[in-house]
Amino acid sequence: MNIGDVPEAVVKRLSAYYRNVCRMEAEGFEKITSAMLAEKIGNTSVQVRQDFHMCGGIEDYNIASLKKRLRELLGICGKHSMVVVGAGNLGRAIISYKDFEKDGFFIDAIFDNDLMYEGIQINGIPIMNIRLFEKYLESNETDIVVIAVPEKAAEEIYRKAVKCKVKGIWNFAPVDLQSVDGVQVRNVHLGDSLMTLSFRINETEYLKSTM
Amino acid sequence: MNIGDVPEAVVKRLSAYYRNVCRMEAEGFEKITSAMLAEKIGNTSVQVRQDFHMCGGIEDYNIASLKKRLRELLGICGKHSMVVVGAGNLGRAIISYKDFEKDGFFIDAIFDNDLMYEGIQINGIPIMNIRLFEKYLESNETDIVVIAVPEKAAEEIYRKAVKCKVKGIWNFAPVDLQSVDGVQVRNVHLGDSLMTLSFRINETEYLKSTM
Repeated sequence: MNIGDVPEAVVKRLSAYYRNVCRMEAEGFEKITSAMLAEKIGNTSVQVRQDFHMCGGIEDYNIASLKKRLRELLGICGKHSMVVVGAGNLGRAIISYKDFEKDGFFIDAIFDNDLMYEGIQINGIPIMNIRLFEKYLESNETDIVVIAVPEKAAEEIYRKAVKCKVKGIWNFAPVDLQSVDGVQVRNVHLGDSLMTLSFRINETEYLKSTM
Repeated sequence: MNIGDVPEAVVKRLSAYYRNVCRMEAEGFEKITSAMLAEKIGNTSVQVRQDFHMCGGIEDYNIASLKKRLRELLGICGKHSMVVVGAGNLGRAIISYKDFEKDGFFIDAIFDNDLMYEGIQINGIPIMNIRLFEKYLESNETDIVVIAVPEKAAEEIYRKAVKCKVKGIWNFAPVDLQSVDGVQVRNVHLGDSLMTLSFRINETEYLKSTM
């Protein structure tokens, strides 16, 4: 695998391939083709084969082998420990998301600055005071910090997580945090996909009006 | 604008340009360059200019004009009426998201099948029984239906929304719904960005181990 030079667009497609391979496995498929996989994600089979070639080649389209290979590529073979900062609606939505555990992502702790939450558990995971966040990271190996707090609180959480050398930060606050010092960051902008939807609606309306 | 053949990757970047232009405007910038915009989204200035060229050309990098042009392209000049189906954590997170309104997306109603919620309001918006969903769509012009329900309930909401000819569906359930009959659909897979984060963490660890 030519690690280090796989473009982000390819990595995003790998995630989508993996999601669809898991679904097709659940539906009882044992073997698939690049054409089937391409159709699932609205792309071409040439693209699928190119992507797989870029990742060191995947020749075997048997579902079980393909799933295993994609898991290796995506780094989801072992257990990843996560903590979620922010026990509001979005934090709770992430905590309640069932599919993460099957891919090895386990939430070990939740932090919030609201004293109201102290001592409460969500799905058996205790909510701790945000003051304990740094201390927790220092004494508990943590792979990923999920930031689900308002914009103004996000930067401080980010700085502390980077200082404590977590491996990754998954940020939902509406601010672009940067990957730094070996700490990988992904920013999720929920609004962006609403904008692409709006673009296509606008396009459809325009085409209707010119027909 | 060559409407109808703007690739999805370009539309996604337009959303990111718009988000950054808004932020830079708030920070007091009056003029920017393609290089500045490129840096914000981690791309090249050539790509920015190509994208703008593809959308009929944007020559004016004055922030106010650029913002206006991007709003036109993204179809966010007017008001879009939305309804949210699902008043759970994710639904509530979407309803509470402040930034949508400034781009003209207004939530007019919330639906849920849980009788516990009936009569309750979130942000002044009443939660209605899901049985009233179709009737509501028939008598209230609705642009976008947001699906924030579990997988097994999503398909039925989708069918009803398509039948009632809404313009767009923004789906957060872990199932791929298809655009059909002039109804545009965008599926949000939260897990995908966690996978890309995991890929990059894996890559970083691998590079460290070979240094």
